[in-house]
Amino acid sequence: MKAKARAHANIALIKYWGKEDEELSIPNNSSLSLTLEAFYTETEVEFSELISEDEFYLDNRKDDITLLKVSKFLDLFRDRLNIKTRAIVKSINYVPTAAGLASSASAFAALAAAANKASGLNLNDKALSTFARKGSGSATRSIYGGIVEWQKGDSDQTSYAIEIDDANWDIGMVVVLVNSNEKKISSTKAMKQTVLTSPYYPSWVKDSEKDLIDIKAAIKDRDIRKIGEISERNALKMHATMLAAKPPIMYFEPNSILVIQIVQQLREKGIAAYFTMDAGPNVKILCKLSDANTIKEDLLKSFDKKDIIVTKVGPKVQII
Amino acid sequence: MKAKARAHANIALIKYWGKEDEELSIPNNSSLSLTLEAFYTETEVEFSELISEDEFYLDNRKDDITLLKVSKFLDLFRDRLNIKTRAIVKSINYVPTAAGLASSASAFAALAAAANKASGLNLNDKALSTFARKGSGSATRSIYGGIVEWQKGDSDQTSYAIEIDDANWDIGMVVVLVNSNEKKISSTKAMKQTVLTSPYYPSWVKDSEKDLIDIKAAIKDRDIRKIGEISERNALKMHATMLAAKPPIMYFEPNSILVIQIVQQLREKGIAAYFTMDAGPNVKILCKLSDANTIKEDLLKSFDKKDIIVTKVGPKVQII
Repeated sequence: MKAKARAHANIALIKYWGKEDEELSIPNNSSLSLTLEAFYTETEVEFSELISEDEFYLDNRKDDITLLKVSKFLDLFRDRLNIKTRAIVKSINYVPTAAGLASSASAFAALAAAANKASGLNLNDKALSTFARKGSGSATRSIYGGIVEWQKGDSDQTSYAIEIDDANWDIGMVVVLVNSNEKKISSTKAMKQTVLTSPYYPSWVKDSEKDLIDIKAAIKDRDIRKIGEISERNALKMHATMLAAKPPIMYFEPNSILVIQIVQQLREKGIAAYFTMDAGPNVKILCKLSDANTIKEDLLKSFDKKDIIVTKVGPKVQII
Repeated sequence: MKAKARAHANIALIKYWGKEDEELSIPNNSSLSLTLEAFYTETEVEFSELISEDEFYLDNRKDDITLLKVSKFLDLFRDRLNIKTRAIVKSINYVPTAAGLASSASAFAALAAAANKASGLNLNDKALSTFARKGSGSATRSIYGGIVEWQKGDSDQTSYAIEIDDANWDIGMVVVLVNSNEKKISSTKAMKQTVLTSPYYPSWVKDSEKDLIDIKAAIKDRDIRKIGEISERNALKMHATMLAAKPPIMYFEPNSILVIQIVQQLREKGIAAYFTMDAGPNVKILCKLSDANTIKEDLLKSFDKKDIIVTKVGPKVQII
């Protein structure tokens, strides 16, 4: 009745942006991501007949706000098993700072895996991925390691992720944490606003399906430049849908643009470095793992050491 | 046979982006701009039977590269009059720095007006606007003062500008010159690349026609907030088409984003300030003229005095 799991965060190279079905968290387009070793969440779930309410601790502190989402998520398991047993959930986020790198992907993947074991439901990875999806869209992908595709599907059962490459070759990421001066609009809200108001959104959905086909071919060839070019443009196309939303949504900060310029300069020097950005100001640089420290050196001229994290590709969710 | 003219630069609130007819410089969408008092070009044209080649002086220096474009432009007048007379053209750009505020609009409008007078062709403003168009698209609008609409039309004769409002009310602009570290792609090249490769371009064209209708209603109401909201989103939609081009085109610099953030903060303080950007890193802030100095004060915390120019609305092209 007790289990602990570790799941890693992931960064999408082909972005998930916009839901076809809000309730079931089915996306409008398939996406593809790289699981990252350096960022992860460890979560312990203990089902117990001795308690009458769920309890949730985040980083050793009781968190009654997040508890609501956690309880609702545990209900997926309880409903399937037709039990009412409450649980104590303890979760630790291993991210270098609280500077806004999304942890909901690793959080819900770890919670799903721990609850799966502790409850005895014992879903396979594919089914677990559909469960994680209902906690947080990007958590769908964090069940797996390496390079992961979230196939959008068209129903609860068919919208899940699969590993398409173990990424056990020269590929990695440098994450630059860009502190924000700005009030943020959440990715959930930004997504909705884009779907509802951006004239570019339909083209985004259509184009991203093509990007996915192209990047899978490039991954097969281990062609880091091709993978990078497709990723970078896909990210910019996503941000472009937001700039065209009403009102416009912009996640670029001055320092985000500075990182982008550094990446462009690195490419001019012959280094295969490509940026991607999500619903926040941080910039993630896709590169050969063997180039990551050279890239870090360059970034150190403009950024603090603590804000630059080099990471290799991470493994699938695991019981620990 | 000799005349001198002054024409002012203009900043589009509804952008011109992409040509339907490259040869005739007919755009894919109508646009709308504000003529600016602070930025202008003075050009003298003297037709003379004593010379056998055109001569061109820019800011008192002989410029044989630009001469080719100037000569071709003068041919429009000579062909119409069936003459071969060569001309000496002297042009001075009155822009505060060479930091990249486009001067081709004021340059070709001033050249058109001076050549029109000096050659004795004496076209009316509307016809002069079609001539200016063939020098540089945005020059079409710089024939007029106030708020100007460039009606796209569908032929050489029907693609011209008109003044739609004298802007003799509380409206102005603060221009922030952002120095660039980056190699630039010219607006002509960026435009072509966007038209050819951006999946968002067709939606841009369609949406901008609606923006034009909306902004004209807001101008009639002298509703600066509505004008600003439409302008700001229109500019972002244009930049979004470029981010989605292949390869992507980005004109944002770190300091461009800084100005955008300052504008957003000004709005939070209740000041009607709205940004627009063209094919470069400079940011132009639309505002009430009566708020312009307050806005400048705020910008002075982050930018040099010489890089912030407050301007009211400028007049039409004139013979001086």
